[in-house]
Amino acid sequence: MLPEPIKKFVAVFSRLPSIGPRQATRLAFLIASFGKTKIKEIADAVNSLDSLTTCARCFRTFTPSAGAGRSLCSICSDPTREASLIAIIEKETDLLSLEKTKQFHGWYLVLGDLRKTGELEPEQKLRLQSLKKFIEKSLGGKAEEIIFAINPTVYGDINSAFLKKELVDYAKKITRLGRGIPTGGEIEFADENTLGQALEHRN
Amino acid sequence: MLPEPIKKFVAVFSRLPSIGPRQATRLAFLIASFGKTKIKEIADAVNSLDSLTTCARCFRTFTPSAGAGRSLCSICSDPTREASLIAIIEKETDLLSLEKTKQFHGWYLVLGDLRKTGELEPEQKLRLQSLKKFIEKSLGGKAEEIIFAINPTVYGDINSAFLKKELVDYAKKITRLGRGIPTGGEIEFADENTLGQALEHRN
Repeated sequence: MLPEPIKKFVAVFSRLPSIGPRQATRLAFLIASFGKTKIKEIADAVNSLDSLTTCARCFRTFTPSAGAGRSLCSICSDPTREASLIAIIEKETDLLSLEKTKQFHGWYLVLGDLRKTGELEPEQKLRLQSLKKFIEKSLGGKAEEIIFAINPTVYGDINSAFLKKELVDYAKKITRLGRGIPTGGEIEFADENTLGQALEHRN
Repeated sequence: MLPEPIKKFVAVFSRLPSIGPRQATRLAFLIASFGKTKIKEIADAVNSLDSLTTCARCFRTFTPSAGAGRSLCSICSDPTREASLIAIIEKETDLLSLEKTKQFHGWYLVLGDLRKTGELEPEQKLRLQSLKKFIEKSLGGKAEEIIFAINPTVYGDINSAFLKKELVDYAKKITRLGRGIPTGGEIEFADENTLGQALEHRN
């Protein structure tokens, strides 16, 4: 009974995390009612994501300069950032929050959402591997410091323990953000002061 | 700090109901990581909604036959359906549920989500107006029966009362679905038997 384009939309969108088939169905009928111009605007907003690329060093998403091929993002190509100070983060939004404190002058490794078990996804293993190679080639085998900027939750603790085992030989110091952030909370929600404190009292 | 295409995506998608800016941001980064083919597939799913149109009589969304211009949906153009028996519904998904009972042989008027106050949106007023015109022109001024197939909630009761005032002169009989549906529930979730019962015992 559902028109084909509605079915297709629901199939595609309900595969995305956090969108269920009912929400997708309602969205489909709603968007269908918007008319040509607005439908195109929404589709274009999706298509424009195609112009983004992933930084070859930190794996964050950014707009590459024209014709540059795979390249470094603005942080990784900034010569004033300390190459030997690395923050390991899960989400791009965590990076934005940390940048806002203006207190961190190293660079990031974006790992993506960590599992609750401490096990790493294949893509996450590749990213850690890439970090290790960078440390070997560009930092003489040891970074000054690797900060685990991972949510201070039980799962964050498990993951930090696993990551520490992986990276212990690759840094003179391995730290986590100070517990200025309320335990159980999320980095994304912390205000700049709290995050700044957490950076300062990292341990 | 957010790349332009991410910002654009978030702006467009967080305007949709039930998607907040945080969910939109996560979706944007996730979709950006999917690569060209999958991004295009998602955008195409949105664009394909453009091929749908609204039935000139019942206002449901359907795929028009090629080159037909604005036309009638499969239900409204079916000569075996009783033109004088009309079910007023809020959502397309309610229509699908009612069709599954195979017990309703009239046609529908899709009103869209009703406000909690009983007040009608301008578009909803136009649709009622169109119904009244149809009843005047094609049914000699009175339909046999108008069924309010509206959720049996407090707000549904308020809306039914308002709609009844609007339509009392346009039907010999105005009914609501029998309370076979558990009060406080939603039509979309009812199983076919319960809905069939509700149709049979409408009052």
